[in-house]
Amino acid sequence: MKILILGGDGYLGWPTAMHLSENGHEVACADNYLRRTVCLNEDVSPLFPTPSLPERAARWKSVSGNDVKVFIGDLTQWDFVSEVFGGFKPDAIVHYAEQPSAPYSMLSRRAASQTLNNNLNTTANCVFAVREFCPKAHIVKLGTMGEYGTPDIDIEEGWLNVEHKGRTQRFLYPRQAGSLYHTTKVMDTDMLWFYVRTWGLAVTDLMQGPVYGATTPESGDDERLMPFFNYDELFGTVLNRFVVQAVADIPLTVYGSGGQIRGYLNIIDTLKCVRLALENPASPGELRIFNQLTETFSVKQLARMVQEAGAGMGLNVRIENIVNPRKEAEEHYYNPTYTGLKDLGLEPTLLTGEILQSMMALALRHKGNIRRETIFRGVKWA
Amino acid sequence: MKILILGGDGYLGWPTAMHLSENGHEVACADNYLRRTVCLNEDVSPLFPTPSLPERAARWKSVSGNDVKVFIGDLTQWDFVSEVFGGFKPDAIVHYAEQPSAPYSMLSRRAASQTLNNNLNTTANCVFAVREFCPKAHIVKLGTMGEYGTPDIDIEEGWLNVEHKGRTQRFLYPRQAGSLYHTTKVMDTDMLWFYVRTWGLAVTDLMQGPVYGATTPESGDDERLMPFFNYDELFGTVLNRFVVQAVADIPLTVYGSGGQIRGYLNIIDTLKCVRLALENPASPGELRIFNQLTETFSVKQLARMVQEAGAGMGLNVRIENIVNPRKEAEEHYYNPTYTGLKDLGLEPTLLTGEILQSMMALALRHKGNIRRETIFRGVKWA
Repeated sequence: MKILILGGDGYLGWPTAMHLSENGHEVACADNYLRRTVCLNEDVSPLFPTPSLPERAARWKSVSGNDVKVFIGDLTQWDFVSEVFGGFKPDAIVHYAEQPSAPYSMLSRRAASQTLNNNLNTTANCVFAVREFCPKAHIVKLGTMGEYGTPDIDIEEGWLNVEHKGRTQRFLYPRQAGSLYHTTKVMDTDMLWFYVRTWGLAVTDLMQGPVYGATTPESGDDERLMPFFNYDELFGTVLNRFVVQAVADIPLTVYGSGGQIRGYLNIIDTLKCVRLALENPASPGELRIFNQLTETFSVKQLARMVQEAGAGMGLNVRIENIVNPRKEAEEHYYNPTYTGLKDLGLEPTLLTGEILQSMMALALRHKGNIRRETIFRGVKWA
Repeated sequence: MKILILGGDGYLGWPTAMHLSENGHEVACADNYLRRTVCLNEDVSPLFPTPSLPERAARWKSVSGNDVKVFIGDLTQWDFVSEVFGGFKPDAIVHYAEQPSAPYSMLSRRAASQTLNNNLNTTANCVFAVREFCPKAHIVKLGTMGEYGTPDIDIEEGWLNVEHKGRTQRFLYPRQAGSLYHTTKVMDTDMLWFYVRTWGLAVTDLMQGPVYGATTPESGDDERLMPFFNYDELFGTVLNRFVVQAVADIPLTVYGSGGQIRGYLNIIDTLKCVRLALENPASPGELRIFNQLTETFSVKQLARMVQEAGAGMGLNVRIENIVNPRKEAEEHYYNPTYTGLKDLGLEPTLLTGEILQSMMALALRHKGNIRRETIFRGVKWA
């Protein structure tokens, strides 16, 4: 299958590119290096250097023999989009090309505006390009569990049957997100659902929880093939951040009580899920939605697991409950359904002390690079 | 009260400006003439000429003694937004500054993209400007009944209490709209709801049905004070279009079976509703939603009413059921609630044969201007 990865330079984009090419697919990546630019502008950096996308593609070719085609440009610009889609003519698209940081989207008016415009225009252009160049192509879109927020009823897998005054209607599960970034993903869903109904597109929306990890079967121990490992407040997902704090002897920054529960998954499982979705595509006119997580934890549970794994390596990991800079419920009901991907064959890689220790070993190798001042700057929601 | 009208040149914007200034408020309008530009580019024109916004403001001043301040510029551009908000410091904002045509939003990729970018950036800038320049200001946002679509359950007034597996949650009423334009309004709602929760903004969302009419108490018979009267496929709302077809001896173009039911209101009632919302504001941290319609009709009912009213004026009005260019249910359940504005004091101006005949008399005076070829060009949804 010819698969085009939008946002192919990103934390998930590059590992996905290797994984799909290793599994027999013809892969192309498009990216404008938005993440790298924002990191430079905001003065944060990943734990170890990440070669450019063509450099990684060349290295991957040399170790695996697989080609990954690279297009560098801005997917909010139609001339670039038409060049990429018209040139590559994909059978399927993996759409990761969004500004993915909740704190960055709350940092300033300009950052919010950039997030809004980048995320909605890349999604709209993806839809228009599929319509124009490859109307049968399957779009696999990364959504986020954050779209649902923390409702007081069970979170179903994308849809909700509502009974009201003796009549019934199936709706998109109502979404109310906790940051502007997450809200742009809700808007994306609204847009895709409209065009699925109107133009008969085939779309899979993967509602993903926070991801952790850096090592995948394809990267092995080769750091030049690993994704960005951000540990800063803007781009570091919570568990990656805790691991770096643990090895740098910085107390783990638990926001508020730490009772916030979310659904997590290992980056290895992201790759499996995306491949399962691609190889078992949605039908034309179908918006298929999966909740992409393998287990749920509260933030304080995660902190304790890191503490314990650290102790096993001789690290004295401290935990600090700090004033929550976000506006969110710290104690809440949370019961999401996530059976769809298991039904397709997903075998989860659950979080263990061993996995945490291997992440800490990676962080320890680069302890000298850790920029302590970037881990918590305190972007406030209100 | 100092009231800023975004989109003050539009079909509803200008009549609102006169109405609020006549009722003792200090009014400013901002507009970039988007409607005029699109009409020029797409080669459609209103039934009679509409003077520029400063010309209308000057004429209104000469007949009423009321000042209306005018800012001409693009509200998607922050430099203009900050000039307007920083200069005028409003107590309340009426936000009409959106590309409002469903068919235009389906015309082409460029039109869709323009609609998306205009509508979301004006809304985002309105939120950011309130936060920065007038955090206590009340935002009155024009939504649309079209956001709800035509669900098989009753449409409640903005919110829905869901009971699910023995637990309950109050959600924004789930929305699924029938055009890209309407979808951008769903996205606006998502965005406003997020910032209401996060920043404590005070917002009223008026979910309005299609509006008809041109004459308001403030315009009287002075056509230079009336709004755009579009009758073309892009910007003519259905009843205004039917009235022009009736006097031009063109069969009324009913899409499909004509069983599509919508909620309608007279432009006079739009002004009353907006004023009621402004003078009875939402509270900080509240997203208050009203369904703004006064009665429901199917398209075929409307066509028959126009036919009958025309007969009373000696016109032989024909009705033609044409292939529906849109993707929509032609026979469906439709039961919206609309009590909130009545509870605030709205006394509806219901549609009568007399009102239709006064609209036809206006159209007859300008029969020579009617450009028959612009009434139906057939913008297709799929």
